[in-house]
Amino acid sequence: MNVQVPKKILADSLSHVERIIPARSSNPGLSLLKLTLSEDALTLNGSDMNIDIETSIQADSTTEGTFALPAHVFAQVVKSLPGELVELVFGDGELGVMSASYATKLQLVDPSSVPPVTFPELYEGSLEAADLMRALSHVRYATAVAEYQAIFRGVKLELSDSRTRAVATDGFRLAYYNLEIASGLEADIVIPARSVDEIIKLLSDGEVKVALSDGQLSLSNGHFRANIKLMEGSFPDYNRVIPNTFPVSITVNAETLSQAVARVAVMADKTANNRVDMFIREGTLQITAEGSYGRSQEALEVAQEGTDPEIALAYNAKYLIDALAPTSGDLQLRFSGTSSPSVLSSVKDPNYLAMVVPLRTG
Amino acid sequence: MNVQVPKKILADSLSHVERIIPARSSNPGLSLLKLTLSEDALTLNGSDMNIDIETSIQADSTTEGTFALPAHVFAQVVKSLPGELVELVFGDGELGVMSASYATKLQLVDPSSVPPVTFPELYEGSLEAADLMRALSHVRYATAVAEYQAIFRGVKLELSDSRTRAVATDGFRLAYYNLEIASGLEADIVIPARSVDEIIKLLSDGEVKVALSDGQLSLSNGHFRANIKLMEGSFPDYNRVIPNTFPVSITVNAETLSQAVARVAVMADKTANNRVDMFIREGTLQITAEGSYGRSQEALEVAQEGTDPEIALAYNAKYLIDALAPTSGDLQLRFSGTSSPSVLSSVKDPNYLAMVVPLRTG
Repeated sequence: MNVQVPKKILADSLSHVERIIPARSSNPGLSLLKLTLSEDALTLNGSDMNIDIETSIQADSTTEGTFALPAHVFAQVVKSLPGELVELVFGDGELGVMSASYATKLQLVDPSSVPPVTFPELYEGSLEAADLMRALSHVRYATAVAEYQAIFRGVKLELSDSRTRAVATDGFRLAYYNLEIASGLEADIVIPARSVDEIIKLLSDGEVKVALSDGQLSLSNGHFRANIKLMEGSFPDYNRVIPNTFPVSITVNAETLSQAVARVAVMADKTANNRVDMFIREGTLQITAEGSYGRSQEALEVAQEGTDPEIALAYNAKYLIDALAPTSGDLQLRFSGTSSPSVLSSVKDPNYLAMVVPLRTG
Repeated sequence: MNVQVPKKILADSLSHVERIIPARSSNPGLSLLKLTLSEDALTLNGSDMNIDIETSIQADSTTEGTFALPAHVFAQVVKSLPGELVELVFGDGELGVMSASYATKLQLVDPSSVPPVTFPELYEGSLEAADLMRALSHVRYATAVAEYQAIFRGVKLELSDSRTRAVATDGFRLAYYNLEIASGLEADIVIPARSVDEIIKLLSDGEVKVALSDGQLSLSNGHFRANIKLMEGSFPDYNRVIPNTFPVSITVNAETLSQAVARVAVMADKTANNRVDMFIREGTLQITAEGSYGRSQEALEVAQEGTDPEIALAYNAKYLIDALAPTSGDLQLRFSGTSSPSVLSSVKDPNYLAMVVPLRTG
């Protein structure tokens, strides 16, 4: 029972599965990689119970079989192989891995100790992989790291018959990204942030098929299949907290603003919310910070609009920098008030919106 | 009292000094950077008590003065400056840093709280910076990490009237690098490994002047001055443990051998000295390893010489890979016996020699 595959293809395929497999687990079966040999493919399977990933490689084999072995050791061997072609020989309790002058024999484990995984038969919907990736990666930063409301540690996907929207919030800031396309599914789901990171790494181009079942989102294209366990509970209604009247608004370049905030924030007090102050008047944005080492300031020329002549408010510098990171070029920053949320949107990509709550001052 | 300097030059100069300044210290004066303004230069000073570094920047100033401030905050400010030119304004208890639209005021500290540092008046010797750097960086790896004999945590420099040699050993391996040039100094000194790392980063090209005094090595060129506190005690006589009869020796490419050992060692037992076995016979080097996950092997064609037809021995794979890292191209690996040291030398650079003690087997 042997099969030949190009090293690069095996290494790529393996890296997607290996990444999620825990190095150590109270369930030793979870640290295993499952290899399935069929007539025309070698399939790799792994799971961390939150996400199951399967990747497939085209390979001619005369026989069929299922095998298991410690994932990380196999990955280390594959990474270090000297040749361009790898020969895998599935023998009696051992997997031979041969490449150029190098050979190794890895001990196989009973594949029944790997927790069983099933993928859907039918995928009701589909999206462009690049679109889904763009939506998720624009909002990922706004998820909560540790929050009393566990649901905030996930990204919400709103799948409707006209639109797909990704939303994340931690209560102090919010980001959403709209895709003006329908997926074929209709549901509101919340994906754990760590699984969102894995999905972003898996997605490349082409179409990805999507299915929902039993608290689980499934994705599939020609190269991989994945089941993602969804979070329970639902997002509070965030639409009502997004303000819609803005006495002051400015237009400024995203990189310029982000760099200026980062520079000024060097002096900000890290123990006091990393506070930077902003004062806008007569087309000038003045950014200042003060901490125990001294104070700093920078002034930017901006295009100012609105009914009020000026506004003064303060932010956590990190929240502003995070919200600016997915954008580039000109952006609009709209202020609803000194203590009510500010809204940031990209001029060239109206699909992205970020909201940041100012720090309470005085 | 103000001075203008190019941002890049200030940032480079500062990075060498800042790197050694501790972020936190029981002596708060140690976390300060001292700035000295003279007629034609701005001088930066820092110390961690093991190494003192001073760098100088050409700068026109109308006045003179000595100032101090927290090193890491100043470095962060300088790194993030937007413009190409920086204006430093030394005021009453504050240092103003201005660049393009950005301005900051940093609180100054009494410079008398910085421990005083003096550099030698006279440098009796000199070396090419590139030579000294090459010698130190070839042997640095062989110093002990944690060893009952503290002296092994340093690199010995043997300065004689005909030669300069750098040596390091941890008792299980040894490396030396010869420079067939005299420095003008005659002494055996031991430099702490961490200070060796700093010296390597400071050195670039041109000549570096050297001086010895009071348990301290001093280095100087046009851009920096450094005092390095030397280790007390002396190296044991290592020359007598370097073997000189070799029943078997092989010639092999350094990269080929290093990669093969690394690959085979994936299967080695990390808890049993990362053991790889070698068997040499009839111009073939067979490398094998065995651990709890399986076993691996690789065979390399080598040029074999010597009086004995074969030899079998085992090494800690890490020690072999470390010894090979500074070399490239063909190398000679000479075996004095199964349990006595092996000697590795580069064919194209005879100045480098490494010795590795095999693992006890059987």
